[in-house]
Amino acid sequence: MAILEGKVLVAQGGGPTAVINESFVGAVLESRKFPQVTRVYGAIHGVRGIIEEDFYDLTEATTHNLEAVSQTPSSGLLSTRDKPDVEYCRNVFKVCQAHGVRYFFYIGGNDSADTCRIVNEESDKAGYELRVIHIPKTIDNDLRVTDHCPGYGSAAKFVAQAFAGVNLDNRAIPGVYIGVVMGRHAGFLTAASVLGRKYPDDGPHLVYVPERPLTKERFLRDVKAVYDKYGRCIVAASEGITDPEGTAIASQFTGGEKDAHGNVQLSGTGALGDLLASWVKNELNIKRVRADTLGYLQRSFLGCVSEVDQFEAREVGEKAAQYSIWHNLDGSVAIRRIGDYAVEYFLAPLSDVARVSASMPDEFLNAEGNGVTETFVRYARPLVGTLPIMERIAAPRVEKILKA
Amino acid sequence: MAILEGKVLVAQGGGPTAVINESFVGAVLESRKFPQVTRVYGAIHGVRGIIEEDFYDLTEATTHNLEAVSQTPSSGLLSTRDKPDVEYCRNVFKVCQAHGVRYFFYIGGNDSADTCRIVNEESDKAGYELRVIHIPKTIDNDLRVTDHCPGYGSAAKFVAQAFAGVNLDNRAIPGVYIGVVMGRHAGFLTAASVLGRKYPDDGPHLVYVPERPLTKERFLRDVKAVYDKYGRCIVAASEGITDPEGTAIASQFTGGEKDAHGNVQLSGTGALGDLLASWVKNELNIKRVRADTLGYLQRSFLGCVSEVDQFEAREVGEKAAQYSIWHNLDGSVAIRRIGDYAVEYFLAPLSDVARVSASMPDEFLNAEGNGVTETFVRYARPLVGTLPIMERIAAPRVEKILKA
Repeated sequence: MAILEGKVLVAQGGGPTAVINESFVGAVLESRKFPQVTRVYGAIHGVRGIIEEDFYDLTEATTHNLEAVSQTPSSGLLSTRDKPDVEYCRNVFKVCQAHGVRYFFYIGGNDSADTCRIVNEESDKAGYELRVIHIPKTIDNDLRVTDHCPGYGSAAKFVAQAFAGVNLDNRAIPGVYIGVVMGRHAGFLTAASVLGRKYPDDGPHLVYVPERPLTKERFLRDVKAVYDKYGRCIVAASEGITDPEGTAIASQFTGGEKDAHGNVQLSGTGALGDLLASWVKNELNIKRVRADTLGYLQRSFLGCVSEVDQFEAREVGEKAAQYSIWHNLDGSVAIRRIGDYAVEYFLAPLSDVARVSASMPDEFLNAEGNGVTETFVRYARPLVGTLPIMERIAAPRVEKILKA
Repeated sequence: MAILEGKVLVAQGGGPTAVINESFVGAVLESRKFPQVTRVYGAIHGVRGIIEEDFYDLTEATTHNLEAVSQTPSSGLLSTRDKPDVEYCRNVFKVCQAHGVRYFFYIGGNDSADTCRIVNEESDKAGYELRVIHIPKTIDNDLRVTDHCPGYGSAAKFVAQAFAGVNLDNRAIPGVYIGVVMGRHAGFLTAASVLGRKYPDDGPHLVYVPERPLTKERFLRDVKAVYDKYGRCIVAASEGITDPEGTAIASQFTGGEKDAHGNVQLSGTGALGDLLASWVKNELNIKRVRADTLGYLQRSFLGCVSEVDQFEAREVGEKAAQYSIWHNLDGSVAIRRIGDYAVEYFLAPLSDVARVSASMPDEFLNAEGNGVTETFVRYARPLVGTLPIMERIAAPRVEKILKA
């Protein structure tokens, strides 16, 4: 096999994560070790930066700088919401060809995998050797093939710690609390809200995900039952929860703004939480009802990272360089779970990962559609790792005197 | 001076913080060292627990348990929003008397200080020796006399890390981002949003606090100026920002729910953020506008604590025991800054701290009313401590070929 000499080009697409720079830096540092790699470029603002030929020459970044960037949340190379069509991908390919790029690594979700697939096809058609590797990234954990996605563990840790704290707060001053979590079609991140539960009455007590349609009646019945039992109730709801007709419950309350993918805006507004809170206030006549929308903190908060997620994000970046430069392969780097807890990496065909997203399997959701199973907890806990200490007072109660 | 033998009673009031249990545990462990302390009780749900005689006997809690609780956010003894009047305080005193309590420590804000003051007066009237110490706690940092309040540093750290992450996110995918921060009358917590700025163009670019009235025109002019300069804009706004007439801008958009103190609900709803976002969308015609309300995570997130805050919270609890049991004094524990950075503790009269709250001094706010000064940064940074690493790529740009 002839050695393919040329440049490496790395780019990041879609929503940032806390560890996306680990993947980027893993790919860059590993690529810089190969003598046939003449330069390592980073495209600024994803595929848009490729079209514009906006590149950093990362061969001239210091190792310290790259290591510091790797620990920084959000896309260090900056990102884009552009969803390339065939024409766009052809232009991406042309720029690669013009700059002598022979290895293209794109870090992103299933849309980015699709971009990789089309760019790869265009290079094949043109008879130009271009290795294309998709490096998985998403807090939604909704990619097919892979056991889980880098970025999910850290976002899940943030959500778990947020709800663990909210639960302590809600115990101290009881009421109904509704926390809205990111997740348009997949409930993995919302489900992670349960990972900080320690005592049997800890919340969240109810978990609603897009995989299970929800009616107002069902929601209020559930909340009432929990409130009657504990005198308080914590709800975790995905931003993408739908009614039985499949309409996003949030969609009627936003301005109807749509992104380049034709999706209605769900994040960056408190409307869904406020709607659910108003249902509880008005119909159940419970006075203290609060709703928070966890928002962008879930994917970019500085200082909340899962160690496992961090290592794996680094490794999928390194593997991209290894699969393509050592082995001359195209594909999407994927994770296979081989132990409790242990993983190995493999390369999946781009077409298996592109476009279509994954949902939570049935075995992760309870029969009532308002909670998760132990199977999910066993799946997700290793990805999040240990959480900070939290403990309740263990002391005897004192006998009353005046009210005895 | 005769040794005052009897029980210690500790309670926590108002909104939780990340380190309020450090103060509680500091007071308990220090009290347990004194031979004249016969028992250490903890009231469950603040003053309401006193009325109900709902007490833990913390003399029989293990040290490990208490140390673990001290690291747990939110009020381990649970809390209350009750604001006692004189009659209520008289009942508090009567329960203390019936149980042989000689030392009462109440951890809370200015309302809790007022409760301490009245209970102290009632015991004086009855000729019953009861030492009463207020232990300061609030994320709002709005207590008089003290340099700053335990609880503030950790909440400020959370807010700083949240905006640091949001800034990285907003750089990657530009637009206007509005983050709403807790703070009804004082802007200290919102001002802390700037502490994670590192590079000159880092956000938040605009900071609005309750101390400076805001008009829609002013807000839009500011946002437009920043957006024109950077192509993006991050705003930090207190939930309690008002118009020039002093009306909370949020108040017209909530159900008008009021708490026991007669305050309109500001937290636990995304309405203010969504309102500000709609102004930008509709009037400036900027497409990508997002609003998050940081919500309860600010005060209870598990796993975001300032070390300085943690130590000081522990120490004000210990000092409460020392001032009252060694020195037979009543008062509110306060912090005096004596170095950069060093503090000492002292005891302030309860009446100096009770009821009236503090606002940000003028020297902390810029002349335009849309940002904070270096003086504020110098004041707040030691309370928050160092933030996690974040760095931008430092590498040369590549020359364009096709677009050259």
